[in-house]
Amino acid sequence: MSELEDAKDKILMGVERKSLLISDDEKRLTAYHESGHVLVSKSLPGMDPIHKVTIIPRGMALGLTQALPIDERRTYSKKYCLNQLAFMLGGRAAEKLVLGDLSTGAGNDIEKATKLARKMICQWGMSERLGPLTYGEKQEEIFLGREIGMHRDYSEQTAREIDEEVKKLVEAAESLAESIIKKDIKKLKKLAETLLEKEILAGDEIDKILQIKKNKRKGKNTEDDKSRQKEN
Amino acid sequence: MSELEDAKDKILMGVERKSLLISDDEKRLTAYHESGHVLVSKSLPGMDPIHKVTIIPRGMALGLTQALPIDERRTYSKKYCLNQLAFMLGGRAAEKLVLGDLSTGAGNDIEKATKLARKMICQWGMSERLGPLTYGEKQEEIFLGREIGMHRDYSEQTAREIDEEVKKLVEAAESLAESIIKKDIKKLKKLAETLLEKEILAGDEIDKILQIKKNKRKGKNTEDDKSRQKEN
Amino acid sequence: MSELEDAKDKILMGVERKSLLISDDEKRLTAYHESGHVLVSKSLPGMDPIHKVTIIPRGMALGLTQALPIDERRTYSKKYCLNQLAFMLGGRAAEKLVLGDLSTGAGNDIEKATKLARKMICQWGMSERLGPLTYGEKQEEIFLGREIGMHRDYSEQTAREIDEEVKKLVEAAESLAESIIKKDIKKLKKLAETLLEKEILAGDEIDKILQIKKNKRKGKNTEDDKSRQKEN
Amino acid sequence: MSELEDAKDKILMGVERKSLLISDDEKRLTAYHESGHVLVSKSLPGMDPIHKVTIIPRGMALGLTQALPIDERRTYSKKYCLNQLAFMLGGRAAEKLVLGDLSTGAGNDIEKATKLARKMICQWGMSERLGPLTYGEKQEEIFLGREIGMHRDYSEQTAREIDEEVKKLVEAAESLAESIIKKDIKKLKKLAETLLEKEILAGDEIDKILQIKKNKRKGKNTEDDKSRQKEN
Amino acid sequence: MSELEDAKDKILMGVERKSLLISDDEKRLTAYHESGHVLVSKSLPGMDPIHKVTIIPRGMALGLTQALPIDERRTYSKKYCLNQLAFMLGGRAAEKLVLGDLSTGAGNDIEKATKLARKMICQWGMSERLGPLTYGEKQEEIFLGREIGMHRDYSEQTAREIDEEVKKLVEAAESLAESIIKKDIKKLKKLAETLLEKEILAGDEIDKILQIKKNKRKGKNTEDDKSRQKEN
Amino acid sequence: MSELEDAKDKILMGVERKSLLISDDEKRLTAYHESGHVLVSKSLPGMDPIHKVTIIPRGMALGLTQALPIDERRTYSKKYCLNQLAFMLGGRAAEKLVLGDLSTGAGNDIEKATKLARKMICQWGMSERLGPLTYGEKQEEIFLGREIGMHRDYSEQTAREIDEEVKKLVEAAESLAESIIKKDIKKLKKLAETLLEKEILAGDEIDKILQIKKNKRKGKNTEDDKSRQKEN
Repeated sequence: MSELEDAKDKILMGVERKSLLISDDEKRLTAYHESGHVLVSKSLPGMDPIHKVTIIPRGMALGLTQALPIDERRTYSKKYCLNQLAFMLGGRAAEKLVLGDLSTGAGNDIEKATKLARKMICQWGMSERLGPLTYGEKQEEIFLGREIGMHRDYSEQTAREIDEEVKKLVEAAESLAESIIKKDIKKLKKLAETLLEKEILAGDEIDKILQIKKNKRKGKNTEDDKSRQKEN
Repeated sequence: MSELEDAKDKILMGVERKSLLISDDEKRLTAYHESGHVLVSKSLPGMDPIHKVTIIPRGMALGLTQALPIDERRTYSKKYCLNQLAFMLGGRAAEKLVLGDLSTGAGNDIEKATKLARKMICQWGMSERLGPLTYGEKQEEIFLGREIGMHRDYSEQTAREIDEEVKKLVEAAESLAESIIKKDIKKLKKLAETLLEKEILAGDEIDKILQIKKNKRKGKNTEDDKSRQKEN
Repeated sequence: MSELEDAKDKILMGVERKSLLISDDEKRLTAYHESGHVLVSKSLPGMDPIHKVTIIPRGMALGLTQALPIDERRTYSKKYCLNQLAFMLGGRAAEKLVLGDLSTGAGNDIEKATKLARKMICQWGMSERLGPLTYGEKQEEIFLGREIGMHRDYSEQTAREIDEEVKKLVEAAESLAESIIKKDIKKLKKLAETLLEKEILAGDEIDKILQIKKNKRKGKNTEDDKSRQKEN
Repeated sequence: MSELEDAKDKILMGVERKSLLISDDEKRLTAYHESGHVLVSKSLPGMDPIHKVTIIPRGMALGLTQALPIDERRTYSKKYCLNQLAFMLGGRAAEKLVLGDLSTGAGNDIEKATKLARKMICQWGMSERLGPLTYGEKQEEIFLGREIGMHRDYSEQTAREIDEEVKKLVEAAESLAESIIKKDIKKLKKLAETLLEKEILAGDEIDKILQIKKNKRKGKNTEDDKSRQKEN
Repeated sequence: MSELEDAKDKILMGVERKSLLISDDEKRLTAYHESGHVLVSKSLPGMDPIHKVTIIPRGMALGLTQALPIDERRTYSKKYCLNQLAFMLGGRAAEKLVLGDLSTGAGNDIEKATKLARKMICQWGMSERLGPLTYGEKQEEIFLGREIGMHRDYSEQTAREIDEEVKKLVEAAESLAESIIKKDIKKLKKLAETLLEKEILAGDEIDKILQIKKNKRKGKNTEDDKSRQKEN
Repeated sequence: MSELEDAKDKILMGVERKSLLISDDEKRLTAYHESGHVLVSKSLPGMDPIHKVTIIPRGMALGLTQALPIDERRTYSKKYCLNQLAFMLGGRAAEKLVLGDLSTGAGNDIEKATKLARKMICQWGMSERLGPLTYGEKQEEIFLGREIGMHRDYSEQTAREIDEEVKKLVEAAESLAESIIKKDIKKLKKLAETLLEKEILAGDEIDKILQIKKNKRKGKNTEDDKSRQKEN
C-alpha cells in the first residue's frame, strides 16, 4: 500500500529529493507555510479535501499541500473561487503572522491567486463593477500575422478598473486567510511543529491534530457557506 | 424518426457522453442555466424558435439550448440583436436568481454577448453615442510586415467610450433577462425540474410546459415588438 | 444589347443569384436601403450618375446601387467628398426613417464612409482644425524589420482630435442624408415599391420615377453646389 | 537642344502621357496649383531656381514644378527649410484662394511638408520649445529581434508637444503662402492662364510673365532674406 | 592551495588581466567603490560572507567583491532582499561621499538593484501598497505568434505605482548605504587604501582591517536584524 | 611623418574628398561649426586633447574635430559627461551666435548629445530626480519570441520625467557652450578664419591661435573643475 502511494506521488509531485540539504530555517519556514494552506482549507466550507501535506522537497518545491477534489467538476461557483483565493494565500499569511517576515517562497501562490482573480473578473463576469462582460482577447483562429501586434480590446481606464477589482479580490482573500490563522494560531503551531518532526502528514493525521471530526460536508452551497462568505 | 434526430444531433452537438459522471449539483445548475435561456427566448418577440434543450453533456458542454432560425437571414435588426443579448445572458440570470451564486459555466455566454455588443457598436453603427462609424481595423490585404504592429485606429478616449457603450448594452440585456425570469420564476422552476427529470425536451414539450399556444409570431418587427423594446 | 449589359454586370457585380431565397422582410429592407442611396445621390449636385439599382442578390450583396463617373478623374474636391459621404449613408437613413430600425446591412456603407472621412482629414488636409498636415504612416520603402513595430506618428490627444473630426464629418453627412429623405419621403417610397416589384431599375427609369428632367449638370462646382453645401 | 531636354525629362519626370484624357476642370485646377508653387517660390529669397513648370501629365502626376539647386548643398539652414514649407503649400493655397475649394491633389504636398517640419523639429533641433535634442529612433544596427517591437523613445506629453510644433510650422508656412498669393493674385492668374494655354513654361518664360529682372540672388543669407523671414 | 584558489577564480571571475593599463584615477575609484560594497555588507546582519575583494581587472570588470552564501538557500526573506539592495549600492555611495562625483562604473550595480526591487514588488508581493499580487507576464508556454505583441497585463496607473514603489525601495537602500559609510568613513578609507596597495584582500584580512571579531552571525532573522530594519 | 599621419587619417576619418565642390557658404559654416567644438573643448577642464581640426570633407562629413583620450578609460565621471555634452553642442552654438541661423549640419551632434544625456539618466543613475535606478530594457538573453513585443518597463509619467531631465541636461550644456563662445567670440573668429584659410589645423597650431600655454591639466577632477561645474 505504501509503495502504491509512493508511485502515485512520483507521478503527481516529482521524485523525492532527500539528498537536498535544506537549512533548519528554510524547513521551519516551509512547515509554517504549508500549515497555513492546510489550516485555511480546513476552516472554509466546500473546499477539496487535503490528501497530504509534506515538507520533503520534490522537484522545484520545498513543500506541498495536496488537495484532491471529491468529484470531477466542470463548473465552479464564485464562492468556491473566493475560498480558493484564501487557500492560496494561507501560506504567506502564516509566514507573516508567525515569522514576522515575507519570503520569496510565496511568489508562486501569489501568481496563482492573481491569475484566478483575473479570470473571475475578465472571463467569468464575477465582479459587480465590471459586469457580465469578457475583457481581453481569446484568439481562437491563430495564424502568423493576424495575431501578432493585436491589442487588448479595452481602454486604459477599464484596465485600471480591472486592476482595482483584481487587487480588491486578492486582498480580501488575504484578510480572510489572516483572520483564520490569527484565530487559530495555536492549531497552526501544533500542525507546523508536527510537520517539522514527521515531514509528511496524511489527511486523517491532519484532522486528528486539528481535532476535526469525520468530515460531514458534501455539497458546495451549504447554509454554513452562506453565513461565512459575503457577496462581493 | 428518432434515429434521424439522433444522427443530426451527433453532427450539430457532438456525441452524447452518457459515461461522463456529473454530480447532482452540476446537473441542477445546468438544468436551471439552460431553462433560463429557454424562458428568456420564449418571452421575447422575433426570436429563432427553440428546437430542443438538453442537459446530456456533449463535447465540452454540460448542456445546450438549440435555437434554429426559420429562414436564411443575411441582415439582422438592432432589436433582434438586443434580444439575442438577453437570450445569451438568460442562463446566468437563472443561476443568480434561483441558486444565489454565479458560476464559471456562464463564461462562454458572456464572451458571446460581449462580442455581439462590440460588433453592434463598432461595425454596425448601432450606438447613438458613437454614431454611424466603424471603429477598429479590418485588414483586407494581409502580408507579413504590413500588418504586424498595426495599431487600433482610434484614441484612448474613444476606446473608453466604446467600453462604456458595450457595457451599457450588455448590462441592459442582463436586466431584461433578470426581469423576465423574476416575473416567471415558477415557470422557470417547472421547466428546470422537468428537464432534470427527462434530460431532454423538444420544442413542443417546452411550449406545453410553458403553456404557450401555437406560435403565431412570424416577422421580426411586429407591433408587440415595438411596445416591449425601447430605443437604445 | 440586353446580353451585353448582362455580361458587363457579371464582371462588375458578380453572377446573379436568383436561386437564393430571400425573405420578404429582407427584400423590403433592401429595396428601401438602395432607394435611400439613389434618392440622396439624385438630390446632390456633382454626383456620378446612377447607372442602375437592383435588389437581385449578387455575390455577398443583397442589393446594389451602381454609380459610374462621367469622366476619368484624378483629383476630387472637398465638396465632392462630402456629398459622397451623404450618398454612402443614404441607405441607412432610409432604413431608419421608414422602417424605424437599424440593421447590420449598413455595416459596409459605414466602413466606407469612415475610411473616406479619415482620408479627408489625415491625408488630404480637409479639416480646418487639423490643418494641412499628414497624420499616420505611409510606408513607401518596406523591408522586414524596419516596418514591424513602427508606431503611429502622433500623440494620443491628436488621435482624439482626429476621432472627433472624423465623427463630425460622418454625422454631418448622416444629417444631410436624413434631411434629404425626410423632405422627399414620398419619392423614396415610390422608388422602393417600384424596385420591389421590378427588382432592377435603369438610370432613365429612376429619373422617370423621380420626375427628373434631362440631367443638365456637368461640372462639379456650379452655383447650385455652393448654395447647398456650406464650408466645413 | 529640344531633344536633349526631352530625354532629360523622360528620366527626371517620367514619360509624357498625352493620350491621357484630362477634363477641363482638372487641367484648370492643375494650372492654378502649379502656378501657386511657382509664385511662392519666386517671392521668397534663397529658393532653388524654377527650371520648368508643366501641366502635361507624366507618371502619376497631373503637373509638375521643377526646381533645380544651383550648387550641391550638404546642409540647409532653418530659413531655407521654412521657405521650402511655404513653397510646398503654394499649390494648395492657390486652389483655395482662386477656386474656393480644396482637392485631394494637394495630398502629396501636405505629406512632404509634414515630413520636413517633423525633421526640422525631431532631427535638426530647429524648435525653440523642444530644444537641441533628437526625438524618435534612428536604428543604426539593425538585426531581427532587436528592432522589432522597439518603442518611440519619448513620452505621450512630449509627443503632443512635437505635434503642436509641427502643426505650428506647417500652418505658419500656409499663412505665408496664402499672403504671397493674395498679394499677387493677378500675377497668379496670368501665370495659370498662360500655362493652361501653353501647357509648359521654361524658367525664363516664367520670369517674363512675372516681370522678374535677371535674377541677382546668389547666396542663401542675404539682407533681404533677414528682413522678410522672422525668427521662429 | 593558492593554485586551487586561482583556478576557482578563473572560473568564477574570468582570467586576470594584469597587462591592462589602468590609470591611477581609475584604480583609486575602483578601490573606493569595492570598499563601499564591503563596508555595507559587513555592517548589515544576515549578509552572505565576503570571500574576497580585488581591484585586479578580470573580464570586463575593473574590480570585484565576492560574496559566497553559507548554505544553499531556496527562499529569501524581504529583510534579506532589502539588505542586498543596500549592499549593491554601497559602491556608488562610497564614490559619491569620498570622491564627490558619480561615475558610469556604478551602472551595473544600479541595474541589479532595480531588477531586484522590481521582483520584490512584482513577483514576490513585498510591497504593502501593491499587495500580494503578481504584476507582469510570465510566459510559460512559449510559441511564436502567441507571445509576440503580448501586452503587460496592468494599467498605466498601476505601472506608475510600481515605478514609485521600486524607486522608494532603491532610494531607501541608497540612504541606508550612505548612512553606513558616513558613520564609518575612516574604516572605508583604511580599507580602500590597503586595497589600493595590496590589490586583493581575503575575507579574514578584511575582518582584521575592520576590527571585526570572529563572525558569530548564523540565521537570517536575529533580534539585531529587527531593530535595524523597519517594515516597508 | 606626414605620410604616416595621412594613413592614420584615412583609417580614422575616411578618404579625403578634395574633388567634392563645396560652396563658400558651406565652407564658412563648417569652419565656424568646427571652431565652436574646439573653443568649447579648450575652455573646459578634463577634456580629451584636440588632435586636429579640419574642413576638408571626408566620407559623409564636411568637417571634423578630432579629440583623442590621453589614456584608456573604462569609467567616466558625471562631470566629464556634462562637459562632453557642451563640447558636442559647441558647433551649433557657434553657428547660432556668429551666423544667426541654425543648420541641418548639427543634426548628428544633437543626436549624440541626446543619447549621452539619456544614458546618464537611464543607465548610470546621474539624475537626482530619477535616482540610482535603471530605466529601459537591456536584453541580455536574446531569443526570437521572448524579446519581440517587450515593452519599456516604466510608466508614461516616468517617461515624461525622463524626457524632462534629458532636456534639462542638454539645454544646460547648450547654455554652457553658448556662454563660452559669447565670452571668447574673437578667439572663435580668429580660429575659424585661420581654418578657412589653412583647411586643417593640428593641436599645437590651435593652442598657438588660442594663446594656450603648454597644457598643464592631467586628472579629471581638479579644483578648477569644481568651481566651474555645478552639481546637477
